[in-house]
Amino acid sequence: MRYELYYWPSIQGRGEFVRLLLEEAGADYVDVARLPEENGTGLPALLRLLGGESLEHVPFAPPFLKAGDLVIGQTANILLYLGPRLRLAPKTEAGRHWAHQLQLTIADLVGEIHDTHHPIASSLYYEDQKPEALRRAKDFTKNRLPKFLGYFEQVRAQNSFRSGYLVGDTLSYVDLSMFQVVAGLRYAFPRTMSRLEPGCPGLVELHRRVARRPRLVAYLASERRLPFSEEGIFRHYPELDR
Amino acid sequence: MRYELYYWPSIQGRGEFVRLLLEEAGADYVDVARLPEENGTGLPALLRLLGGESLEHVPFAPPFLKAGDLVIGQTANILLYLGPRLRLAPKTEAGRHWAHQLQLTIADLVGEIHDTHHPIASSLYYEDQKPEALRRAKDFTKNRLPKFLGYFEQVRAQNSFRSGYLVGDTLSYVDLSMFQVVAGLRYAFPRTMSRLEPGCPGLVELHRRVARRPRLVAYLASERRLPFSEEGIFRHYPELDR
Repeated sequence: MRYELYYWPSIQGRGEFVRLLLEEAGADYVDVARLPEENGTGLPALLRLLGGESLEHVPFAPPFLKAGDLVIGQTANILLYLGPRLRLAPKTEAGRHWAHQLQLTIADLVGEIHDTHHPIASSLYYEDQKPEALRRAKDFTKNRLPKFLGYFEQVRAQNSFRSGYLVGDTLSYVDLSMFQVVAGLRYAFPRTMSRLEPGCPGLVELHRRVARRPRLVAYLASERRLPFSEEGIFRHYPELDR
Repeated sequence: MRYELYYWPSIQGRGEFVRLLLEEAGADYVDVARLPEENGTGLPALLRLLGGESLEHVPFAPPFLKAGDLVIGQTANILLYLGPRLRLAPKTEAGRHWAHQLQLTIADLVGEIHDTHHPIASSLYYEDQKPEALRRAKDFTKNRLPKFLGYFEQVRAQNSFRSGYLVGDTLSYVDLSMFQVVAGLRYAFPRTMSRLEPGCPGLVELHRRVARRPRLVAYLASERRLPFSEEGIFRHYPELDR
């Protein structure tokens, strides 16, 4: 099965959580909107499906995935679907709900990270909501981020398999997503992360371990991996990182 | 199976999406934190599990559900688990992912509704972030809410079963959640909803249809249904509803 991923072509964004899973699994996939605007690919192909009346299961926003006849939207839902098929999810139903629960909590954290630079409106520039962003980022770095990191550190420590992974005894898509969160936070909030990382050594170790996986090493060094930038979710604005 | 729901005892909040499903299904359940603080129930029972080291699958926040030995957190994840068991979800895997995708989009909308009155920090009072709330609510009522309502109106219209429901040919938990969203929006933003409802007659009809279901009629008239208030997600601050 060749999977078709549809996501904005110039940012990591939420699509990156899906890309990391597809890459680690060595799956056969195409990143449709990054292909040339020929043969029905490229950004126009994404825009055609988004909000189109031709598609019954129309997505509200990217990313979405085509798997044969199926079109699936919402990042965590895509991972829920792909995880077992790509052998990067727990085998039991209970394990899958637990992995999904953690992924949804990661999604909540990612939403809060986004809102540090866009607390008023996604449609406005950062510069047009900077005073509000300064206030929100201050609360985020002081209260919310330590709470989230402490939670995931606890989850890893309490994993009864003592595997060093978040869920069960082997790598899962949740670990790949946590890798991305740590990498993104280091890019966006380097000062804050220097302060907080000593309090979550398990997550630091998890990030290191995921980064060493051969397929991810190859992916991260390739042109398929887009750089972090001030267009995505994780943005480095030094004034928000006090 | 007697289900145990754990949620804050004095608000509808996110727990209400689970309560509506349990009530419509006529499920055997207890709302643990609303019971007296005896026999291991009441709010202390919730707080013991939340963040406790005794529980491997520790939830980040309420609501969470105990189903036998299983503890499941994240509202949409709970509905994903309960829906098929209570016969209020599609039967096919594709249908279930579609229902879940819509539920996650409802969760995104609910998050944005919450942030209209708390754009800076959940830990601060509304009064301490009122200028920011005015700005965020203005964007929400002008841009974001019309976009979300238009999307769900389109989803209902494009349902190939022409059932009047959002998914498939019968009522599902997604319809119950949409009922709650419409009810909450009418409470919080009555002026905005008067303006927008003519543009989404399908959702208005769906709300009416769900509200007439006998078990929900009984539930909504009972003391089990907590009132909307300025402690929950849907808050009526007239200044945010221009």
